[in-house]
Amino acid sequence: MTSNGTLTPSTEKGTDWIARAHRDHVLTSWSKQSGPDPITVVDAAGCWFVDSNGNRYLDFLSQLVNLNLGHQHPRLVEAITEQARKSCFIGPTFANEARSRLALELDALTPGNLTSSFFTTGGAAANEAAIAIARAVTGRHKVVARYRSYHGASAGAMTLTGDSRRWGLEPLTTPGVVRMLDPYVPGGGNVDDPRYSAAHLEEVLQYENPGSVAAVIMETVTGTNGPIVPPPGYLKSIREVCDRHGILLICDEVMVGFGRLGTWFGIEQFDVVPDILTTAKGINSGYVPLGATIVGAHIRDVLRDIALPAGLTYAGHPLACGSAVASIEIMKSEGVVENAATQGARLQRGLEELTQRHPSVGGIRGLGLMWGIDLVGADGSPLIPFKGTPEQSAPGLAVVKAAKERGLWIGRQDSVIRLAPPLIITADEIDLALSILDEALVHADEAVGVVR
Amino acid sequence: MTSNGTLTPSTEKGTDWIARAHRDHVLTSWSKQSGPDPITVVDAAGCWFVDSNGNRYLDFLSQLVNLNLGHQHPRLVEAITEQARKSCFIGPTFANEARSRLALELDALTPGNLTSSFFTTGGAAANEAAIAIARAVTGRHKVVARYRSYHGASAGAMTLTGDSRRWGLEPLTTPGVVRMLDPYVPGGGNVDDPRYSAAHLEEVLQYENPGSVAAVIMETVTGTNGPIVPPPGYLKSIREVCDRHGILLICDEVMVGFGRLGTWFGIEQFDVVPDILTTAKGINSGYVPLGATIVGAHIRDVLRDIALPAGLTYAGHPLACGSAVASIEIMKSEGVVENAATQGARLQRGLEELTQRHPSVGGIRGLGLMWGIDLVGADGSPLIPFKGTPEQSAPGLAVVKAAKERGLWIGRQDSVIRLAPPLIITADEIDLALSILDEALVHADEAVGVVR
Ligand SMILES: Cc1ncc(COP(=O)(O)O)c(C=O)c1O
Ligand SMILES: Cc1ncc(COP(=O)(O)O)c(C=O)c1O
Repeated sequence: MTSNGTLTPSTEKGTDWIARAHRDHVLTSWSKQSGPDPITVVDAAGCWFVDSNGNRYLDFLSQLVNLNLGHQHPRLVEAITEQARKSCFIGPTFANEARSRLALELDALTPGNLTSSFFTTGGAAANEAAIAIARAVTGRHKVVARYRSYHGASAGAMTLTGDSRRWGLEPLTTPGVVRMLDPYVPGGGNVDDPRYSAAHLEEVLQYENPGSVAAVIMETVTGTNGPIVPPPGYLKSIREVCDRHGILLICDEVMVGFGRLGTWFGIEQFDVVPDILTTAKGINSGYVPLGATIVGAHIRDVLRDIALPAGLTYAGHPLACGSAVASIEIMKSEGVVENAATQGARLQRGLEELTQRHPSVGGIRGLGLMWGIDLVGADGSPLIPFKGTPEQSAPGLAVVKAAKERGLWIGRQDSVIRLAPPLIITADEIDLALSILDEALVHADEAVGVVR
Repeated sequence: MTSNGTLTPSTEKGTDWIARAHRDHVLTSWSKQSGPDPITVVDAAGCWFVDSNGNRYLDFLSQLVNLNLGHQHPRLVEAITEQARKSCFIGPTFANEARSRLALELDALTPGNLTSSFFTTGGAAANEAAIAIARAVTGRHKVVARYRSYHGASAGAMTLTGDSRRWGLEPLTTPGVVRMLDPYVPGGGNVDDPRYSAAHLEEVLQYENPGSVAAVIMETVTGTNGPIVPPPGYLKSIREVCDRHGILLICDEVMVGFGRLGTWFGIEQFDVVPDILTTAKGINSGYVPLGATIVGAHIRDVLRDIALPAGLTYAGHPLACGSAVASIEIMKSEGVVENAATQGARLQRGLEELTQRHPSVGGIRGLGLMWGIDLVGADGSPLIPFKGTPEQSAPGLAVVKAAKERGLWIGRQDSVIRLAPPLIITADEIDLALSILDEALVHADEAVGVVR
């Protein structure tokens, strides 16, 4: 109760108190709490948000790549108010209309025999449940995961994660997680090299004892630590290796599910059906916290006789499930997935042009509305090293800053500029973003020493 | 996409499809999926819910002990619709009015120097963050946790958990968790015995190397595996041992925070301030998934220079935070915590009378509106053993069944009947519950062989 003289909302006009209260009383994810004061967002609609200084930003990250329907979609907001009036919460062991309806929707929407869902409050919990289920139904304990991955922050999900945020948790990770490499060669290279696909997995399994491995987990298309689009045949070959050894395949579509790649699910583009699909974010654009672990009928059958080794107070939360039912209905009736494919193609064409024009752009990677721009030096190698210092990262920071000054909100990891706008984006908004990027990338060109 | 002939809502009238869709397409927490079809809840208000057969139940469990404000509290529902219209989601690194307001509220509401909150989507994630923070700020890796505890389902939280649900996760638990016993002697005994308090912790620490221990975590009053109310001086003595060794004390108030025990927080009744307090459930009655890890100013100071080793897409979710601000305001203006104390005392008196009248009742345990009834055999030992078989559990199952047939929804773990109604409960509802319990307990008396 030490307010330290903090002015409370009731005693202060304006919005300055919001950033100050955040700085003093909110702990911000993954950050040193002595960073710069946060930007206060005071309004948001569609693909745009507005800060307390009146700056408008075109949200080319969909916040954390979750706002597939953009900010404050009126129909989704309305559906949430309706569901709130009907039923906010009923415990997980009861049946409830919203929860059952969503389960039926997902059964119908997902490919293959993915029929039954365990509902969580986000992506990490969905992956925790997937692993627990895989272990319970196979009776095996190891899991193979990749380095360039993010699967969530809780101990189990973080152990699966390759991303360096895992370092902060060690040594309190769970045993039994084994690594394989990604279909990605830093600085470029032949990803079709067998070292990066089925043969690589086979080699790892041979050393690990395939009979001890419950599951292989991978993002269908790597998000945060990518984008990495798997080369043709990659996922099918991984699926084959799994089948040969009785290992379950878990595809993490927390980021890419629900239209991000221009199809409802990423797996549709690679003609593969995993045993377990995890998702969150786009399932309801994150308007209410929700995730799902969707399992095949063969998994569900085994779970008839084994207690599900997972549970949350908010499993199958009616308000969250109701919002997802509405969100799926909106995506269908407004052609949102089709729009993602159309505008994704437009964005891709524009980025290809930028690649021609900017010496600092080595290439682009992505699918649908999730793209990365590789910044490279004069020799074609990454302009900024893995976990570069602020000095080493300067050209990337300058590009992001220049874009933001021009009202375009984008991200960066190492040498990759990240783009992932809401799926409701228009052609004009795509073009606006491209023209701002064109200006912003000059800062990277300067670092390379070649400005056209 | 194998609907297996499942009738979808649009092709079927009535509510039968809801339970059937749940059975076929929803995975239910902690259960074998071949269990009986779930009860469908079609309506709920205040302390009551209604199933699809028209049965009304007095919800003496507040669902999962989270509905502190009861079902569909009109003011809370209205506040959620308002917040939904204002802002459903803004990413965690931005400042946002609802999030800042809740952080200020919690600063003011919590005792001692608990000033800064990391917001999660539930209890497990709050405990995961608490442990990660404790380890980061102390530079130590071990954590002491108790056997009779439930801290959540994700790998880190489940490793802390003593509850046998942990067995299903092993061996994939995290290293570094050390156990101590609870201030509870199965079958009765002297809990003031030093074996169960500070001296016990001191002994464990001596063998473990206190300098390697980051934190001791305990439920202030044990919920699911209790109730266990710590004896006088217990928590203070634990606090002192922690201080002596530079170990952080984490109190898990996911279940008991926000009025459950007749005070805003459980710690207020024991005159102890932990370094970290975790909470969820009652913070907003679970109408929107939310949890919080609330840390002392001294922890926050250290986190200025160390990156917070925690993060979630839905950290500080505006819709969830807005609902909690409203829930706290409702609890204040409607005197809900005071009501919990008043009705809790009434419930306690009534349960004490039942203890006199029923030979199968060995005693009661609890505080505020969280109570357990110990069922005992003729010799005073627990009537049902730890994890008893269905046959061994028959008398407990019979009591629960008889109560439900009379419209009272209660729980049971082993030999303990569990009671935890919404904090808005009235005297009449308490009396109704007591009279139903009086009838239901006859089934346990019969098992003991003595019916008055
Ligand atoms: C692929 C993937 N998996 C899992 C997660 C974790 O989701 P959450 O933050 O909801 O726990 C994320 C979050 O960014 C993600 O991108
Ligand atoms: C004391 C305690 N801690 C943690 C949890 C886990 O909370 P959640 O189910 O929201 O993850 C619970 C849930 O019952 C609890 O009672």
